[in-house]
Amino acid sequence: MRSNTLSRALVLIALVTPIPAKTQTSAMPNKHDAKIIAAVRAVLEAQRDAWNRGDIEEYMDGYARSADTVFVSGDNVMHGWQSVLERYKKSYDSREKMGTLTFTDLEIKVLSNDAAVCLGRWHLLRANDQPHGRFTLILRRTKQGWKIIHDHTSSAA
Amino acid sequence: MRSNTLSRALVLIALVTPIPAKTQTSAMPNKHDAKIIAAVRAVLEAQRDAWNRGDIEEYMDGYARSADTVFVSGDNVMHGWQSVLERYKKSYDSREKMGTLTFTDLEIKVLSNDAAVCLGRWHLLRANDQPHGRFTLILRRTKQGWKIIHDHTSSAA
Repeated sequence: MRSNTLSRALVLIALVTPIPAKTQTSAMPNKHDAKIIAAVRAVLEAQRDAWNRGDIEEYMDGYARSADTVFVSGDNVMHGWQSVLERYKKSYDSREKMGTLTFTDLEIKVLSNDAAVCLGRWHLLRANDQPHGRFTLILRRTKQGWKIIHDHTSSAA
Repeated sequence: MRSNTLSRALVLIALVTPIPAKTQTSAMPNKHDAKIIAAVRAVLEAQRDAWNRGDIEEYMDGYARSADTVFVSGDNVMHGWQSVLERYKKSYDSREKMGTLTFTDLEIKVLSNDAAVCLGRWHLLRANDQPHGRFTLILRRTKQGWKIIHDHTSSAA
């Protein structure tokens, strides 16, 4: 059920048009949706840049600072911004472990005026390994801007 | 990054209150949200029942019949209802392989009047193994009722 057809060198940001579930046809996003898509991309770019500076706190700024923020990985579910921050700090306690993060193949769909979903590919370039996989993020528009409220990450086998 | 603290026998359906990302407090869902949550649960119950009857076509009725429906698993992304149907038919070509499916620990959040997210635990009881893990589903209200437009599934290591 898993494929490893990673084109690792290719940094291709694909913006997929948001489509209502009932239609089958594709179209260019309207101005309103394009603005949301750009905002969501900006959240991920800021996260990537923060990670690659070794700044986990700033990386975590992409997530909603809420006890309801959900992080799913493999068979594990973690609730709460603070818990996720602590997990990251523990799992990635050196610059070497953090490596260089890239996000590619982004497909962003606008769900409503204040909700969007972003599918993407993550890849960590490190000295001794290159873990990678996919993520589904659900973002909401908050007073602090667009923030991730739900992150489901899976890894290549 | 993965834990295996599965309480396999415990069938606990937890309905989590939909909370805007900006708030930190929990509350009971209002009537409108409760109706959506019930509709989403009904989709999953119908899928589970269809699966356990060996009816993959009916199971697939939970997904939007669209080329845009997305299925993410491990490092693999598949687009399109038809492709997912074919994959299921190939991967589960006998009643024995299908086993008995249960969904537990459902956490359903209403994102808008026509969008919701459902986090849950899946478990397949088969003669020789018990694969299990988590899923994040995004559902939309369509003319055909609530349908899954995005499924991100991950497995226990």
